[in-house]
Amino acid sequence: MEPGTARIAVDLLGGDDAPAVVVDGALRAMRADPDLHLLLVGPTEVADALIAALDPAERARITVRPVRSAVGMADHPSAARSESTVRAAVTAVRDGTADALVSAGATGATVTAAVLGLGRWPEIRQPALVATLPAVAGPVVLLDVGGSLEPRPATLARHAVLGAAYAAVAHSVVAPRVGLLSVGTEAGKGDRVRRATDPLLAVEPLPCGARYVGLVEGYDVALGARADVVVTDGFTGNVLLKAIEGAYAMAGGPPVGGGAPRAAALLGVAGTVVVCHGSARADDVASGIALAAHLWRRRATELVSALLDGDAATDRTDRSTDTEVRTS
Amino acid sequence: MEPGTARIAVDLLGGDDAPAVVVDGALRAMRADPDLHLLLVGPTEVADALIAALDPAERARITVRPVRSAVGMADHPSAARSESTVRAAVTAVRDGTADALVSAGATGATVTAAVLGLGRWPEIRQPALVATLPAVAGPVVLLDVGGSLEPRPATLARHAVLGAAYAAVAHSVVAPRVGLLSVGTEAGKGDRVRRATDPLLAVEPLPCGARYVGLVEGYDVALGARADVVVTDGFTGNVLLKAIEGAYAMAGGPPVGGGAPRAAALLGVAGTVVVCHGSARADDVASGIALAAHLWRRRATELVSALLDGDAATDRTDRSTDTEVRTS
Repeated sequence: MEPGTARIAVDLLGGDDAPAVVVDGALRAMRADPDLHLLLVGPTEVADALIAALDPAERARITVRPVRSAVGMADHPSAARSESTVRAAVTAVRDGTADALVSAGATGATVTAAVLGLGRWPEIRQPALVATLPAVAGPVVLLDVGGSLEPRPATLARHAVLGAAYAAVAHSVVAPRVGLLSVGTEAGKGDRVRRATDPLLAVEPLPCGARYVGLVEGYDVALGARADVVVTDGFTGNVLLKAIEGAYAMAGGPPVGGGAPRAAALLGVAGTVVVCHGSARADDVASGIALAAHLWRRRATELVSALLDGDAATDRTDRSTDTEVRTS
Repeated sequence: MEPGTARIAVDLLGGDDAPAVVVDGALRAMRADPDLHLLLVGPTEVADALIAALDPAERARITVRPVRSAVGMADHPSAARSESTVRAAVTAVRDGTADALVSAGATGATVTAAVLGLGRWPEIRQPALVATLPAVAGPVVLLDVGGSLEPRPATLARHAVLGAAYAAVAHSVVAPRVGLLSVGTEAGKGDRVRRATDPLLAVEPLPCGARYVGLVEGYDVALGARADVVVTDGFTGNVLLKAIEGAYAMAGGPPVGGGAPRAAALLGVAGTVVVCHGSARADDVASGIALAAHLWRRRATELVSALLDGDAATDRTDRSTDTEVRTS
């Protein structure tokens, strides 16, 4: 864990088993990270229950932001209850009260609230949800895992840039290898979107010394032998990530080094946002909070965004300048 | 293993490591199944190597169909070498010399050869590759795993019927639960194809007492808790199957009961065809041959086709007749 205070806004009502598992997860995260401060967004009575479980020193690290409209909504579906809390958490990040936010609420609602409240980065039409899987040779960054279900080839190419920058900034991957997920490794394999994206990626300037290694297959997501960054549409990425999680459960548990993540970073909005799985357990929420703190301490959002700006500012016909900008 | 002679045509030149692993796999399959007869399709010298490794009783169970154009093509890519052998294997099934065929050659070439040589079933525009995964509660039938990468909703609905019939006929699943793979289980989750297919499946008459259980997620492919048959497009199914295989490799090996299959049945053509993974090992080829023999002994192709005909002949507005036909 890197040093430095991180103030994380937590959506107390997000997730199928909110608020209980969110409270439990927040408690675990606080105890694991002495520099963590939490801004609890939700009904006061829920926040009070968490605070009561803490010792006085820990209580000093908690602030509560009550959301009135959430009170008395116990009978509403979790998604509806969470919408107002996630919006309030986004506001906290925008006004500087929190450094990052974590929600296990409906992904679509969180993405919408983040785009509207924080704004998209220039040149990013579709923010991407990025999951990191532990593999043999190091982490594998998989994107998108649910942000944009039907991206155009140009969006996939932008996501390749995002993923390469994220691998370098968030996980210290040196010169990331970027692959496009398909049904075979030979050029030309895949559906229309893949066949149109492959040539785009072959000429796309990638940041951080990253290079495009071509088409990769499903194995490569879990094993990481061929790529550090795997680019795919949000539909395929989402079902793939859950299939790997199911396979680990079938195999008797995740491998050494960790299983499939149940928290993902939202890249492409002007703020640090982590989305947890709707059926997140307390450990998953704690992991999500830890990821948000890690990304904040690494200045990941800021650095990834700057790498994109550099990329966008580059005249792509001038490869010498391009290389200079990319490796700076 | 069911009793009864099964004569399986084996494409000696199909697969990345052909003919060595194919010969090895064929040998293993023969030794595991005393009622198996093999028709080896490929260069005589390759077949001779296999025959030399057998005792006289086993030799009586082998026939060789030399393919002239394959001779002297050692320097050609595997895919090109296998095209003539897979066509010859299809011919053997068509003319009744073999009961089924197995190839680890390029999937596209095998599907094309099978469609042209054996013909499609009525009402099947796109044949499906069907893989069966062992799960906690029983087998999970996943289709398509690479036959049609961009199916229309109507094709996915037909594949649901194929999958239900296959689960009942090939794996004795009683009243199969059929799910449509998506990014969440609530109605409306998914991309355009999924949103268009879900209502079709809700009213699609399914054979063998099967019922549509709605949207399922990636976990369900490995765990099988929610569905016995999982329907998806060939792109998603292919990458998913390989991701599960990669996850089992990461987790230190497949679970008890077996891992991700590396052989798939081709449904929708008038003959029993099994496609092995291009990088099949000897065990995979042996599994593919055993699957082909199993399907032949169960009369799976014939029975699945008959269930489709019944379904097609049903007046869908008359549900009482429909039920009668479906459960017959």
